Amino acid sequence: MPSSLTTRAWQLPDGIDELLPGAAAQVEALRRQLLDGAARWGYQLVIPPLIEYTDSLLVGVGEDLDLLTFKMPDQLSGRMLGVRADMTPQVARIDAHSLAGQGVNRLCYAGSTLHTRSRSLAASRSPLQMGAEIYGDGSLSADIEVMDLMLSLLDDAGIAASTLTLDLGHGAIYGPILEAAGLDDANLRSQVFDAVQRKSRPDLEALLEGREGSLLGTLMDLHGGVEVLARARECFEAMPEVLAALDELEALSQSLGARFPEVALYVDLAELRGYRYHTGAVFSVYAQGLGEALARGGRYDNVGAVYGCARPATGFAMDLRLLAARLSEAEAGTAIAAPQEEDPAVQAKIRELRAKGETVIVSLGGVRDPRCDRELVNLDGDWQVQVLDSSAVAPGGNGAKA
Amino acid sequence: MPSSLTTRAWQLPDGIDELLPGAAAQVEALRRQLLDGAARWGYQLVIPPLIEYTDSLLVGVGEDLDLLTFKMPDQLSGRMLGVRADMTPQVARIDAHSLAGQGVNRLCYAGSTLHTRSRSLAASRSPLQMGAEIYGDGSLSADIEVMDLMLSLLDDAGIAASTLTLDLGHGAIYGPILEAAGLDDANLRSQVFDAVQRKSRPDLEALLEGREGSLLGTLMDLHGGVEVLARARECFEAMPEVLAALDELEALSQSLGARFPEVALYVDLAELRGYRYHTGAVFSVYAQGLGEALARGGRYDNVGAVYGCARPATGFAMDLRLLAARLSEAEAGTAIAAPQEEDPAVQAKIRELRAKGETVIVSLGGVRDPRCDRELVNLDGDWQVQVLDSSAVAPGGNGAKA
Repeated sequence: MPSSLTTRAWQLPDGIDELLPGAAAQVEALRRQLLDGAARWGYQLVIPPLIEYTDSLLVGVGEDLDLLTFKMPDQLSGRMLGVRADMTPQVARIDAHSLAGQGVNRLCYAGSTLHTRSRSLAASRSPLQMGAEIYGDGSLSADIEVMDLMLSLLDDAGIAASTLTLDLGHGAIYGPILEAAGLDDANLRSQVFDAVQRKSRPDLEALLEGREGSLLGTLMDLHGGVEVLARARECFEAMPEVLAALDELEALSQSLGARFPEVALYVDLAELRGYRYHTGAVFSVYAQGLGEALARGGRYDNVGAVYGCARPATGFAMDLRLLAARLSEAEAGTAIAAPQEEDPAVQAKIRELRAKGETVIVSLGGVRDPRCDRELVNLDGDWQVQVLDSSAVAPGGNGAKA
Repeated sequence: MPSSLTTRAWQLPDGIDELLPGAAAQVEALRRQLLDGAARWGYQLVIPPLIEYTDSLLVGVGEDLDLLTFKMPDQLSGRMLGVRADMTPQVARIDAHSLAGQGVNRLCYAGSTLHTRSRSLAASRSPLQMGAEIYGDGSLSADIEVMDLMLSLLDDAGIAASTLTLDLGHGAIYGPILEAAGLDDANLRSQVFDAVQRKSRPDLEALLEGREGSLLGTLMDLHGGVEVLARARECFEAMPEVLAALDELEALSQSLGARFPEVALYVDLAELRGYRYHTGAVFSVYAQGLGEALARGGRYDNVGAVYGCARPATGFAMDLRLLAARLSEAEAGTAIAAPQEEDPAVQAKIRELRAKGETVIVSLGGVRDPRCDRELVNLDGDWQVQVLDSSAVAPGGNGAKA
């Protein structure tokens, strides 16, 4: 075996990582807590597949998601497959097709996704997503419910509300303002979109070259506390669609503010994030000192149509790994060391202890696992659990001879 | 939107499926039960990545696994990536490299894998694997422990032991017998391997063309109850390596037979399954009426070396979806309907009920979720849970007006 192979064989690709025992247990505990939390709100778990035909995975989603998706040919069908880069379109398909898109469906999910490149410098290329969605209700109450659920789950997970900021935006504000600017060149519109998203005034001005595009420039400044909504109302008083969106943001900020008084609210009307499929309120949650959003979501009422059933939808997704990194590490449990013996009496005792929820680790080759603080010993023919003499535990070692 | 797209957009690739609410909840419950079971035996969870460089994912594994692996270029590095088709080599890498291969490591895992084609007609192309491995112990006791764990987990999951058959084979039997046959052409050896694996006597005879290969033919007949071991001992009395392997199988069948008297034992010495990396005992568990194995595993002591650290290893993996399909469906829980109101008193009551573990579903737009059998009502200014009049519940409907 050439040594170059040996030294490379353990290397993971950039942006791809593995979770070792402590961190993996923490992510697993968090995953269960979040799914159980969502279940108590009536959200039912679905498990979408890792891959789908790109025809169904990428229909109706923006170019961003398309470029993030790994694609490969299916040797069975000759068609192109994609590895999911986001589970939201999959769950929309399940609602619209598999569940036949009737009534209100509350669905949740958790699983790995894969990106061709990181969405930001520090981001993983394989986010472990957990999310929840409501289908079939176009009212603001559904938006309030999913944001309430999202913030409640973060609270349950132990993230202090006082460290969080809820960013609010709206997917129906930019469109009318862009229309009003009268830019008909698709390439120019795309460059303008980028400039506004990056909040780059010099770029925007260079692109507009003195045209009447001042409302686009105005939009860029409309971010800050909830008072931004009043300012925006004045700027866009002639645009009823924008005013309707501002009304929604007003109602949302009041309702969420009352439910989570400690969470800071930030309104950003130039937030054009994502896959350009949002039709209503969009939101993100940021934690102090973390550049990436802990969770994000929004309303996207156009997705189901491509699966044969147009349905209103709103929901959020969060990255379990990012969230777990904010939590203090769980304390490792303790274990009982058991001797390696074929004696049915000791086997029965081990089974009994495990059935009670104890961790019992057999000392293979007589070597005790370092996690053990008790041991199973034979006292006058009876198998009993005895606390280990702490001086006999090898400090941080790989186990002491039993 | 052309209708051809609409009708195709929901199609899933062959061998790929999604899990809808009832089935997904069952698989999730099973996943937790199995991981918690393994934890009580001291197995620590690790979460390996979905993709790795093929250089590390496929090093040291056989051609079978290579052909099952989806590959695609990494646009960041220009190197080739593979989606894991099996998590066992990943966990071996984690033991050898990430955990520095010291002492005894007991690791477990659960996650989706992906295959370019199904391993059998009915098999999924994306098995949801759960598995457990012991590293660092080359003794038979480790083999016994993982088989004991595997059968105990199946028992905990509610699979009756009396419906199970444990197939035992050994990875060190075929090699010496092939050597004795003196076949030096690699292509011929490969064809002979296939013929023995398929237990095809005509094919084997055609390949050997009257050569002295009779022990290969003998091997093909050595399957059945534990009495096969005694017959094999006579046939291979001149081959000490084979006799040592038979001794191991004898000890294993005695130990497992004592621990699980209801599980049928089947010895198959011509079982050459898998990725050709097994060096010791190999095993599978079959359930009555199911062609696919519920779980399979074995000893493979050569894997860690390619990651810079040779380690003895033994373990098993099972397919959660296959296992869940054997279980009766879990009963769906019941829920409490709550009115959609901003009143802080009702919000507080809902929070309190959820904190107690109740499922509370807000009736968006006044429509009650059909899962609700109770509702939250305001009785003289006090919010209380009341059983719903069963006649008011729409039978199988999508909710009745509250």
